[in-house]
Amino acid sequence: MTEQATRTPLSPTPRSTLARYKERGAVDRAELDAVLDAGLLCHLGVVLGGSPVVIPTTYGREGDTLYLHGSTGAGNLRAAMTGEVSVAVTHLDGVVYARSAMHFSMNYRSAVIHARPVELTDPEERMHALRVIVEHVAPGSWDAVRSPNKKEMAATMVLALDLTEASVKMRTGGPRDEESDIAAGGVWAGVLPLRQVWDDAVPAADLEPGIEVPEHVRTRSSSFATTPE
Amino acid sequence: MTEQATRTPLSPTPRSTLARYKERGAVDRAELDAVLDAGLLCHLGVVLGGSPVVIPTTYGREGDTLYLHGSTGAGNLRAAMTGEVSVAVTHLDGVVYARSAMHFSMNYRSAVIHARPVELTDPEERMHALRVIVEHVAPGSWDAVRSPNKKEMAATMVLALDLTEASVKMRTGGPRDEESDIAAGGVWAGVLPLRQVWDDAVPAADLEPGIEVPEHVRTRSSSFATTPE
Repeated sequence: MTEQATRTPLSPTPRSTLARYKERGAVDRAELDAVLDAGLLCHLGVVLGGSPVVIPTTYGREGDTLYLHGSTGAGNLRAAMTGEVSVAVTHLDGVVYARSAMHFSMNYRSAVIHARPVELTDPEERMHALRVIVEHVAPGSWDAVRSPNKKEMAATMVLALDLTEASVKMRTGGPRDEESDIAAGGVWAGVLPLRQVWDDAVPAADLEPGIEVPEHVRTRSSSFATTPE
Repeated sequence: MTEQATRTPLSPTPRSTLARYKERGAVDRAELDAVLDAGLLCHLGVVLGGSPVVIPTTYGREGDTLYLHGSTGAGNLRAAMTGEVSVAVTHLDGVVYARSAMHFSMNYRSAVIHARPVELTDPEERMHALRVIVEHVAPGSWDAVRSPNKKEMAATMVLALDLTEASVKMRTGGPRDEESDIAAGGVWAGVLPLRQVWDDAVPAADLEPGIEVPEHVRTRSSSFATTPE
């Protein structure tokens, strides 16, 4: 179970070069974008009263910016979210079965970002950020539905994070066993791949008759939810 | 996209009652266990040099204890992991398509634990915790493979966390739209369910011929990876 994966500092800092094992250097910024764009949920870490708090939440990416949003009502959390934060997006691609207990592992792709989010105040910027988030979570939906009204906008905190301090970690392939364990033989080893899939769309109970599943939803349900590269 | 889900404090504290919306009270401890047991990966939040750091990692649960492990070599991180931590396990069950942008949401099950992990020093306890982690990640594997040797044990930090300060959040079902948006009509609304599935086992490239996929791996690959209740 020892950590064998790559942590690739895109912009090395003490926080983004924590890992001790560096097997692979992928300084390509495109890898960060790929991990973020393939995800639906991030885990946001903040410091609240001196303690870490991890919160699962949605996000959207555009260029070098990651957008988050939340409720303006959550006072303490609102303050914590504009301090230093850490954002992780992880895709689990499989369980690696090894010939010894400590070499069991996971195949995955993971991005970790460190940033100090800025709370957006400009109405147009805020609306744009929300569009990016909604289009990330549900591509093709923004123009098909009612836009946020003034009351909804007032209740919503919108944050922008810079993606410059980030790292990408990934592990692929089979177990990396000790030579002696391979030589001893007799133990199955390999990978059990894991994948996210969409099921067919389920219409809302209160949907009026005659409205078909729109193309942007139908085509998504026939695609893979996440695709390892 | 407004947060509509339930955060259920099993043992309410300021940290475990962050959410503003409480639609459903599920004080059942079994729900916490179910979310943890259905997961393969957690996101661990620590404070390092005053900043939050979120790390994806494996874990195992037994009774009221969550076990984590890591490398003894990661000095700073080792120290941070025995301070206050936050551990989140999240299952994404679907994207909720609403009739207005701010009501888009996710269906999910999530557990967040706050604890101060204890580093285990007793050799038997450490070995037992590693067994729990390996059996969580790959049920049926511990007895089938070589156990950790002294060198591997010396390189491994093993932590135990108490599960008493924890909360469970979940959202299920369709969109909860405004009456006026439902009345206006014309917009598809519903859920696109998301699910993790196992693919067939892939033997290691260096596996000797004649070793079949063992039953504990074969039966897993024909099961659902995560099953919403």
